[in-house]
Amino acid sequence: MGYGDLDQLAINTIRTLAVDATFKANSGHPGAPMGMAPIAHVLFNKFMTFNPKNPNWVNRDRFVLSNGHGCMLQYAVLHLFGYRISMDDLKDFRHVDSITPGHPESHDTDGIEVTTGPLGQGFANAVGLAIAQAHTGAVFNKPGYDLINNYTYCFFGDGCAMEGIASEAASTAGHLQLGNLIMIYDDNHISIDGDTKCAFTEDVLKRFEAYGWHTQWVKEGDTDLEGMEAAIKKAQEVKDKPSVIKLTTTIGFGSKLQGTGGVHGNPLKEDDCKQVKKKFGFNPEESFVVPKEVYDAYHKHAAEGAAAEEEWNQLFSKYKEEHKDLGAELQRRLDGKLPEGWEKKLPVYKPTDGAQASRKLSEKVLEEIHEAVPELLSGSADLTGSNNTRWKNAIDFQPPSLGIGEWSGRYLRYGVREHGMAGIMNGISAYGTLIPAGGTFLNFVSYAAGSVRLSALSHARVIYIATHDSIGLGEDGPTHQPIETLAHFRALPNMMVWRPADGNETSAAYYMAITSKQTPSILALTRQNLPQLENSTIEKAIKGGYVAVEAEKANITLVSTGSEVSLCVEAAKYLKDKHDVTARVVSIPCFEVFDAQPKEYRLQCLPDGIPSMSVEVMSTLGWERYSHEQFGLNRFGASGAYKDVYKKFDFVPEGIARRAMATIDFYKDAK
Amino acid sequence: MGYGDLDQLAINTIRTLAVDATFKANSGHPGAPMGMAPIAHVLFNKFMTFNPKNPNWVNRDRFVLSNGHGCMLQYAVLHLFGYRISMDDLKDFRHVDSITPGHPESHDTDGIEVTTGPLGQGFANAVGLAIAQAHTGAVFNKPGYDLINNYTYCFFGDGCAMEGIASEAASTAGHLQLGNLIMIYDDNHISIDGDTKCAFTEDVLKRFEAYGWHTQWVKEGDTDLEGMEAAIKKAQEVKDKPSVIKLTTTIGFGSKLQGTGGVHGNPLKEDDCKQVKKKFGFNPEESFVVPKEVYDAYHKHAAEGAAAEEEWNQLFSKYKEEHKDLGAELQRRLDGKLPEGWEKKLPVYKPTDGAQASRKLSEKVLEEIHEAVPELLSGSADLTGSNNTRWKNAIDFQPPSLGIGEWSGRYLRYGVREHGMAGIMNGISAYGTLIPAGGTFLNFVSYAAGSVRLSALSHARVIYIATHDSIGLGEDGPTHQPIETLAHFRALPNMMVWRPADGNETSAAYYMAITSKQTPSILALTRQNLPQLENSTIEKAIKGGYVAVEAEKANITLVSTGSEVSLCVEAAKYLKDKHDVTARVVSIPCFEVFDAQPKEYRLQCLPDGIPSMSVEVMSTLGWERYSHEQFGLNRFGASGAYKDVYKKFDFVPEGIARRAMATIDFYKDAK
Repeated sequence: MGYGDLDQLAINTIRTLAVDATFKANSGHPGAPMGMAPIAHVLFNKFMTFNPKNPNWVNRDRFVLSNGHGCMLQYAVLHLFGYRISMDDLKDFRHVDSITPGHPESHDTDGIEVTTGPLGQGFANAVGLAIAQAHTGAVFNKPGYDLINNYTYCFFGDGCAMEGIASEAASTAGHLQLGNLIMIYDDNHISIDGDTKCAFTEDVLKRFEAYGWHTQWVKEGDTDLEGMEAAIKKAQEVKDKPSVIKLTTTIGFGSKLQGTGGVHGNPLKEDDCKQVKKKFGFNPEESFVVPKEVYDAYHKHAAEGAAAEEEWNQLFSKYKEEHKDLGAELQRRLDGKLPEGWEKKLPVYKPTDGAQASRKLSEKVLEEIHEAVPELLSGSADLTGSNNTRWKNAIDFQPPSLGIGEWSGRYLRYGVREHGMAGIMNGISAYGTLIPAGGTFLNFVSYAAGSVRLSALSHARVIYIATHDSIGLGEDGPTHQPIETLAHFRALPNMMVWRPADGNETSAAYYMAITSKQTPSILALTRQNLPQLENSTIEKAIKGGYVAVEAEKANITLVSTGSEVSLCVEAAKYLKDKHDVTARVVSIPCFEVFDAQPKEYRLQCLPDGIPSMSVEVMSTLGWERYSHEQFGLNRFGASGAYKDVYKKFDFVPEGIARRAMATIDFYKDAK
Repeated sequence: MGYGDLDQLAINTIRTLAVDATFKANSGHPGAPMGMAPIAHVLFNKFMTFNPKNPNWVNRDRFVLSNGHGCMLQYAVLHLFGYRISMDDLKDFRHVDSITPGHPESHDTDGIEVTTGPLGQGFANAVGLAIAQAHTGAVFNKPGYDLINNYTYCFFGDGCAMEGIASEAASTAGHLQLGNLIMIYDDNHISIDGDTKCAFTEDVLKRFEAYGWHTQWVKEGDTDLEGMEAAIKKAQEVKDKPSVIKLTTTIGFGSKLQGTGGVHGNPLKEDDCKQVKKKFGFNPEESFVVPKEVYDAYHKHAAEGAAAEEEWNQLFSKYKEEHKDLGAELQRRLDGKLPEGWEKKLPVYKPTDGAQASRKLSEKVLEEIHEAVPELLSGSADLTGSNNTRWKNAIDFQPPSLGIGEWSGRYLRYGVREHGMAGIMNGISAYGTLIPAGGTFLNFVSYAAGSVRLSALSHARVIYIATHDSIGLGEDGPTHQPIETLAHFRALPNMMVWRPADGNETSAAYYMAITSKQTPSILALTRQNLPQLENSTIEKAIKGGYVAVEAEKANITLVSTGSEVSLCVEAAKYLKDKHDVTARVVSIPCFEVFDAQPKEYRLQCLPDGIPSMSVEVMSTLGWERYSHEQFGLNRFGASGAYKDVYKKFDFVPEGIARRAMATIDFYKDAK
């Protein structure tokens, strides 16, 4: 308590930096930074512990700006505290190749915990960060060693409050009673269409109460610094609920257009910039000004954070002596290393092993590796029994008071909330001590597309366990049968889409998913049984593609994925028997990984001079890259027993063989 | 009121039909139909007016089963009332090519208003149906002619209640004060993971209150028919709010496993089937039994509905005399016809017309056609000023009490709710009197992917106005720049993805979007200005692809879309000037439509024997179909001024020319 001129000066420094940077960029959102500068000042200085010199310190308090378009607020604050964001970086706001892009990107910029901007995502990420904290604390904290006890703070605006993903995450957080999660709702009544009364008249706090949150309202969000501090303090004291503080602010505070949509997404006009500076006691002719006393005050708090980290480091050293195994375990995770030899636990299959659905093969992997990889946190969006995401002796991650799990549990019941799950997993991954894996039907990964994209963009090691991966799911029918989904995610940069054909390929997919620290994965898995292939090995499959059936003087190459590979093997036999035609079969479980192999290897798999045909029971889009002809399904599926559905669309050995013969015939002159 | 044995018999008939059909299919969800049979019986018989012989009567009450997995409830009820669903159809439940697929599909089955199953979708569709009713009523109802006053009823379960799309739609419905919307929440405490207490402990009714809904709770949902009737009656009386009735039911009522997850998604075991029938007074050895008195009672209600339609038809006849223009207008819409000559309003451009962003060209189309096409209902997910979706004199669709619009308004403020918007648009389209168009950034159409897919599957004429369609949006950066989006939706069956290159192509896209009654469209539009092409015409562009620059003895064909077409034209000039190389340029604004042209035409555009290169600033996935080489962006974009971003990735005439030369060189021996 006890705020004075220096506080006001600091707040206005943040505001004018946001004004200057957006003006210089001739682009950006000054309104939110100007409105939220007071709460940022209070939160960061009075409550948050962090060390700008080591932005990766595990027990730092986390901050998420879910209204990421207001990122000049975040860049300005990080700069003031001495993070690796220089004044030149602020001047480069929204310029190509700067570390201060139009929306904050965690991969490029120190102090940015998660990539935000697409609305609602940061909100869900914050829930994930809080989950990771609760879990990691429960696993590692010991009497006298409260090693992991940081708070997660999140700012969000009306836009986030309207997004479904935030509703899903908020309901989840309330259920999970995440006491260390504190959110500030910027109630500024303005969105891009103007006054929120045109579309958003609900009672937000009442809604959060319904979710089980602790709620408060600070009505004078532009000025009442004491009120903000008291509210955050109170929120900290509530240990069995997440907290939301509604803060009524004036967007673009200080601008001539304050409180209007005019300051939301456009820089201030030049005269308004000057007017603001004058009003705040700054020289209207100068730009990008930080008074020395503001730097001093912020650097002082940063130094306190550095000291706190140092103290933590000493505590952790002692811990490592007293709790050798746990200490080594936490150290390993902080070093970003995987457990030695974990991959030896991956199941290996012989061709004589029984046919199994790849969702079951995936379950087997989880069963075998979950002890060896204790950072793996599995879960499902209410499809546990269908996704096979839960190992037998798993304990649910739940607030102990519910009597159905523990904070240290490693299985998360996400509810029917695919988008929320994905956003939460991005947050869990960002925390740094866990590898989240979450299940749903492949078709409903599309519900989560907004977050899946951010998994890729922010280099998050998130594993999507996507079962029921085709018309092979059968009776549920076209509403549940993916057609476009693999093309969608194959087109997404930095995303591995795996569609394994058998047990060894499934193990390979997990090997790559877990060892690729900067890349998320989607594992597309069948509901129906698949035989074990003759020639598959983990070593071959991790190349993303390999020859499943080789043959000399082949007439055609059949190239395929997942459940259709074994169909192609059957088709090859049929072609030999009925037509004396020789077919090779190539399995490409992951385009992204196969494309990264040396050209020589790829040509070995798909040699020139042999006509080729792709076989996959969904959209053929993208298959032209690997084949001359494509056999797929460029229409919606059908509801029925899976064999009937496959037959309806001619995905049977005879149907493949017929098309193979036509392909051979068509290309016979081209040889 | 006054329920007796016949009511109970009817309810148990529905239950046993659901038991028999799922048992015979060896697949499906008996639990919800068994639990919700009582409310379905009360709702359909006591409140709903409809004519099974004319399922398209415009003023019928609408029913949506958002928990679509419970569709045996719906099929059984529709069968009992005499809709075109025979007993054999019920026996064919979940069989290939039946009209009773695993989840209800509106396109195939009479009486199914919207395609549901993907959770939350039906909820949003119901909101859309209610919006369409409110709007259509406001436009056409006159004193003495309450032509359009139907209710929209919707059942939803815990799964829907957890989905973000339903939260978005519920908040929207509360804001819009949709008095004719009545929802029944099946509070059965069971989802696939078991008891909902593992993930879903919020107070649902309180949440709906926060949205502005009228809420009620009927605690004995298995038995209290009077209570259900009273609650629906009360909900009907609340005219200024949508209503939700929480109905506590026992999932799988009657089964030995009632109230457990065991009856949710699996047929009952044989002995349980028999036990249920015995309990309900049916012969345990018989299946698919409907007592005659149940048929009689249901057919009687159907006949009352037919009479109500007849009465309505007479009223409408009188209306057409008294209100000639309006009557003719409504008749035209009911006939599924577009206004005569509307297409003449589409703007036509000359090459000398100024450069404009295609989002502005789209605005111009809306400005020009909105009077001619009064069924067009535009809107945006809080990006009105950016999407340019609002014509100048538009009136907002709002409850009049807010003072910012009218029920008859044709502009919808969807809020920051992309998924909700899309689901609502599907519902608006399903009502039958309107063509919904809704805007967001192309990148955020992905948030709505679940609903977009259902636009396509259910043949809904919905128009997605998707601006800011590439890295060309500039400063907002990678979080907002689509890379994978076009590939995603190009892979979706029955979806037209248009990326127009100039004014005439934009008009062509709208022409196709509006005239394709069974196919939704995504219009990908630029933020940046585009010049008018020399050779574009609406007639050419509606073929989905055409030659933008023809040349004899060409060395290469550059094939492109949208903003890159004019870049290719520049590159062609550059190639001629600097390298004396001749390039043709082909524009393919819509793959789906181009692929449907005769082969001869396609070969005319993309002739054999000339190397070709595609140019599009996003994922190249799928472009192999039209080109030998691909110049695209298989990585995320960058934040900066749009020209800087294009330059960074070499999307400039020189960069295109360089790659064109390499392509010509590579293929020179193949000629």
